[in-house]
Amino acid sequence: MNEFSKEVIEWFKGLQDEICLGLEKEDGAASFHEDLWEHREGGGGRTRIIQNGNVIEKGGVNFSAVSGIMPDKIANAINVTKGKFLATGVSIVIHPSNPLVPIIHMNVRFFELEDGTHWFGGGIDLTPIYVFEEDARFFHQQLKSTCDLSNKDYYAKFKKWADDYFFIKHRNETRGIGGIFFDRLTGKTSEEKLENWKFVQNVGKTFLPSYLELVQRRRNEQYTEQELLWQKVRRGRYVEFNLVYDKGTKFGLDTAGRIESILMSLPPKVEWHYDFKVEEGSAEHFTQLNLKKGINWLVNK
Amino acid sequence: MNEFSKEVIEWFKGLQDEICLGLEKEDGAASFHEDLWEHREGGGGRTRIIQNGNVIEKGGVNFSAVSGIMPDKIANAINVTKGKFLATGVSIVIHPSNPLVPIIHMNVRFFELEDGTHWFGGGIDLTPIYVFEEDARFFHQQLKSTCDLSNKDYYAKFKKWADDYFFIKHRNETRGIGGIFFDRLTGKTSEEKLENWKFVQNVGKTFLPSYLELVQRRRNEQYTEQELLWQKVRRGRYVEFNLVYDKGTKFGLDTAGRIESILMSLPPKVEWHYDFKVEEGSAEHFTQLNLKKGINWLVNK
Repeated sequence: MNEFSKEVIEWFKGLQDEICLGLEKEDGAASFHEDLWEHREGGGGRTRIIQNGNVIEKGGVNFSAVSGIMPDKIANAINVTKGKFLATGVSIVIHPSNPLVPIIHMNVRFFELEDGTHWFGGGIDLTPIYVFEEDARFFHQQLKSTCDLSNKDYYAKFKKWADDYFFIKHRNETRGIGGIFFDRLTGKTSEEKLENWKFVQNVGKTFLPSYLELVQRRRNEQYTEQELLWQKVRRGRYVEFNLVYDKGTKFGLDTAGRIESILMSLPPKVEWHYDFKVEEGSAEHFTQLNLKKGINWLVNK
Repeated sequence: MNEFSKEVIEWFKGLQDEICLGLEKEDGAASFHEDLWEHREGGGGRTRIIQNGNVIEKGGVNFSAVSGIMPDKIANAINVTKGKFLATGVSIVIHPSNPLVPIIHMNVRFFELEDGTHWFGGGIDLTPIYVFEEDARFFHQQLKSTCDLSNKDYYAKFKKWADDYFFIKHRNETRGIGGIFFDRLTGKTSEEKLENWKFVQNVGKTFLPSYLELVQRRRNEQYTEQELLWQKVRRGRYVEFNLVYDKGTKFGLDTAGRIESILMSLPPKVEWHYDFKVEEGSAEHFTQLNLKKGINWLVNK
């Protein structure tokens, strides 16, 4: 393995540590349980799960670095040459217990083939049970600031990509209020490679302070039974997205990855009601109206 | 529409009525709510949902008869000529509240193209939260008796088909204890067509008495919190199967069918726990050991 890949792997591990520490401190009650696992071909992962805390009902902060020989089927599917590959990254999904605190997802990843082909991918997106415009604005502003450090076009481009990606086609609604999503970010020169890596590191570092701010704004707010019900319904949509559309999940299931690490993203308690209706003008209705593509969250409405 | 198709549609409607009546009577508290809907090209359906009853926590007994011009994409996918089609059937999923009463699913369907190509499909399968061998034996015996009326090879063939179809690949486990599943049952002569139709009618008529017997055996048994938890975990696997593998669900989502009618199959309350473990030698463990293909349920063990 080359020096650069080693550096990426070590940095991702450090990011996982830092985020776990920060989330544990914020939660104040639960701590992460770690499962180490090995991939049959090479490498492995550190799955870290936190459950039944003060803030987090169920959350996973996973690191993995898997290497091996690319199977033909996958090489064809992702349109690369066969050969040795490395895939490493950090994946996070947090399901808070308070329905006023949003679900968050982050992923940063690096992929490399022995012929030098490589790319970065990742993103952060937010799935509020209840949309609060000021929180959505704060979240998107954080992402824009991070993007702007690297490229003034990134935020607009990757925000649209998130809108298109985190979309539940059969419901004609987005999973949440989006964020940023990018894939196959590659550079022609080693300088560009380092610039991309810097960007991915910045995305990774944006996660913790942004989410802690959102948590702190709402964690102590009282909530009702009705709000808990809406949380379980909204979580059902999260399940629908992850099992029907999410490429990472599908890839993991197809390639017989470590199932418990892949499906850690599924929410703890979920309900499906037939033809669930929200009341006209309610906060649930407001949220539903905001589950669509193309909303500019940065402007004060 | 030809006379035979009309007869099939009317018979399916009658089957839906009979099953709804029988389930309501058994439940004793809840009754079916009906939503009529129309397909944009032709035909429509009667979605009937029962919720929060004495026995049934959530259940759907749906009839539909949809016609139209086959879209190219679907014609290619199912390998038929384009043109006018009719697809009609009854689909049932029942999620009982008592974890000792099994989840059941039935589907009987008829498909026809204007050039005379046609086939029947269907099946009944059982998903116990807790496997009871005597109940499994009774259930499979009922199916075998029904199959034997038409063809002595059907039970073995369609039982294997169910084992293979209702399989959660990423868990390496079956959804439940199977049953029978068949598709593209077609006849070369009009006599064979009528024989197939008789078989499908017999399958449809097997549902109610078989399920009522299973319900009556367990509906009044006491259950514990632990059993309710296991029910929610097992229901999670049901969701995984339906959203990841079930062809009917995928077809419905891909073709923008009526979402609420398609997803009525999802259980009401579900939980996902990270790396849920059952206790060695427990009833949960016994169930898990029986979630595999190729078990002969007919013999007294």
